[in-house]
Amino acid sequence: MFQLNDNYLKLPGSYLFSTIGRKVNEYTKAHPDKRVIRLGIGDVTQPLAPVIIEALHKAVDEMGCAETFRGYAPDLGYDFLRNAIAENDYKKRGCNISADEIFVSDGAKCDSANIQEIFGLNNKIAVCDPVYPVYVDSNVMAGRTGVYDKETETWSDVIYMPCVVENNFAPMLPKKTPDLIYLCFPNNPTGAVVNKDQLQEWVDYANKVGAVILYDAAYEAYISEENVPHSIYECEGARTCAIELRSFSKNAGFTGVRLGFTVVPKDLKCGDVALHSLWARRHGTKYNGAPYIIQRAGEAVYSEEGREQLRKQVAYYMNNAKYILEGLKSAGYTVSGGINAPYIWLKAPGKMTSWEFFDYLLENANVVGTPGSGFGPSGETYFRLTAFGSYENTVEAVNRIKALQF
Amino acid sequence: MFQLNDNYLKLPGSYLFSTIGRKVNEYTKAHPDKRVIRLGIGDVTQPLAPVIIEALHKAVDEMGCAETFRGYAPDLGYDFLRNAIAENDYKKRGCNISADEIFVSDGAKCDSANIQEIFGLNNKIAVCDPVYPVYVDSNVMAGRTGVYDKETETWSDVIYMPCVVENNFAPMLPKKTPDLIYLCFPNNPTGAVVNKDQLQEWVDYANKVGAVILYDAAYEAYISEENVPHSIYECEGARTCAIELRSFSKNAGFTGVRLGFTVVPKDLKCGDVALHSLWARRHGTKYNGAPYIIQRAGEAVYSEEGREQLRKQVAYYMNNAKYILEGLKSAGYTVSGGINAPYIWLKAPGKMTSWEFFDYLLENANVVGTPGSGFGPSGETYFRLTAFGSYENTVEAVNRIKALQF
Repeated sequence: MFQLNDNYLKLPGSYLFSTIGRKVNEYTKAHPDKRVIRLGIGDVTQPLAPVIIEALHKAVDEMGCAETFRGYAPDLGYDFLRNAIAENDYKKRGCNISADEIFVSDGAKCDSANIQEIFGLNNKIAVCDPVYPVYVDSNVMAGRTGVYDKETETWSDVIYMPCVVENNFAPMLPKKTPDLIYLCFPNNPTGAVVNKDQLQEWVDYANKVGAVILYDAAYEAYISEENVPHSIYECEGARTCAIELRSFSKNAGFTGVRLGFTVVPKDLKCGDVALHSLWARRHGTKYNGAPYIIQRAGEAVYSEEGREQLRKQVAYYMNNAKYILEGLKSAGYTVSGGINAPYIWLKAPGKMTSWEFFDYLLENANVVGTPGSGFGPSGETYFRLTAFGSYENTVEAVNRIKALQF
Repeated sequence: MFQLNDNYLKLPGSYLFSTIGRKVNEYTKAHPDKRVIRLGIGDVTQPLAPVIIEALHKAVDEMGCAETFRGYAPDLGYDFLRNAIAENDYKKRGCNISADEIFVSDGAKCDSANIQEIFGLNNKIAVCDPVYPVYVDSNVMAGRTGVYDKETETWSDVIYMPCVVENNFAPMLPKKTPDLIYLCFPNNPTGAVVNKDQLQEWVDYANKVGAVILYDAAYEAYISEENVPHSIYECEGARTCAIELRSFSKNAGFTGVRLGFTVVPKDLKCGDVALHSLWARRHGTKYNGAPYIIQRAGEAVYSEEGREQLRKQVAYYMNNAKYILEGLKSAGYTVSGGINAPYIWLKAPGKMTSWEFFDYLLENANVVGTPGSGFGPSGETYFRLTAFGSYENTVEAVNRIKALQF
């Protein structure tokens, strides 16, 4: 008789954003007259930039002609895209990353869930608390996290790095030594960043203890301040300890288009074995390449026109962030993030829990946010709002929240 | 110090098609004057049908307008596509499969590699020999296959079901009892099929021993004979023992577009737990949905125009199959497949091994095929040719092979 992977049964509740989706659906069904504004899930709302649309149409036409039709893509990505990434995201920032260290994929969610596969099951992971749930859940499914404690909402074999007001919502070096360290800057959900010296400390620490940093830089396009690193490879020694995950979802609005990439430097080794060759093997065996037309859209992101159009798109969202940040501050909320990230992290008013505030906002302001506790126990009483709505909706949502009486 | 997933290190050599790609690249670099014809990897060559191109353009335009822009897709697929699949692939064939049992993905390669994740590590797998390498390799990576024996090229914990000339290249029920049974009909690589009574035997067997059949039906569009089942759900009892994997790669030429789906009936349970909920959890946690524009292309496959245009595309390839089959037969080769499948399975001439014949064909006819031994030990001395080339190339390749002197 076959057996299940019973690690799945250890997962508490359903995936955070599925739960939110269900709650919102139930509310809108019960109140069809209410106009609900969603500033919860980190989904973009602006249409794809003209240069992307043009590239997509052109590539679609190519797929319709025998002479230019493309079948299976190279497992690791087309050279035109890998070269554009190496040149623009790395070489231009002084990072020594070559095109063949870049693995094109259908997005950072898949990559950040799959990357743990190339590591041993006994490796100890360290995660920020609060944290993007995929890092932890994918390790639970693999059986790497031990036993779940319902009281504390923590796993026995996970090292938690609290991100709280005392450390500006950025983690401190952990007390126990981890093997794999998940870092995300600009941070989801708190919007916090670290400067280059702080990130260098992490790189030095990882090299010292023999840990690998899994560095999620999905939000790097939102960095507005100087001295905030866009890539971990800006730090010395990162090539021997860091894997970087990137996405086109937030810098180019590809949440429904699906494109991302992972960088695995060839110097990152366990003994003689390069992690690069393991990840290449995984791609070759379990993945079939990102669609040609979408890789062409990715290429257009790096064109001169593309950079200009997308700079404006990011600025549009950051203007929303500013509106939320200032609006909530003026209404007396404790808020952070929103300067180098599209996320605003706020404290629920009074003694409300995160989910209480979620329900309260949904019912009284018809605004959807994300409960901080869904990201981890240290997120309790906090709440995440995103800047990815339309400007009109963002203004309306903030005004509705400001009008609430506590 | 972090550790690797050392199961990866047990994998012998590189992924079959990567090795072929490397060999062909080396040959073409060394002989730039030779025109190499590729009938190796199962990649299509005909451009996307007009109805698909039209659907793609329309969806791209939608992504360029704020009113019609789509962000994250539903994890499990858009209803418009799931409904079209349920109606056309199942209801029309009398199979009781509902839209919410269909999980849309970026292709059957990923799904067939990922599906093992929801099962326990102690489950014993049974595979055809020869077999599509992904089934075995993904289980090796998970640590489910035991020790590799270089002599016999087999894994100690895998149950092999030889597909040889004596059983018309279709497997017999295994002697040892498996937990998971990978079946693929029409078969890759041999092109063999089973009739409905034979498949019913497998379903009855799986229900009796408590095994799950992972049924890969990626080539069902190529079935030309009556009484060959297109779906395992045509068999009674399949809802309690079978998961079906489907692809748009071969019926619609989506190898570079990427779309597929997996069917997990809600009646398929281990105790009280439905595999449906585990696979849904995996999708929700580790996958972010297939791109909107590509799901719209998938929908167009099922339109009246789409069905007509794609019927012609399949007929085009099957005409190639017929040419290969008859040409090689007339040249004295022992051949099978090619009637209900786009693959022709032939015996290497004389006492040549599969790889010897691969090298011989590449060097002397500049034709690329796939060595049967790359699919498993029982494939040794066999060779796979695909019908997915252009008609002109197919004719040329067959004529070159016929002209060889042994």
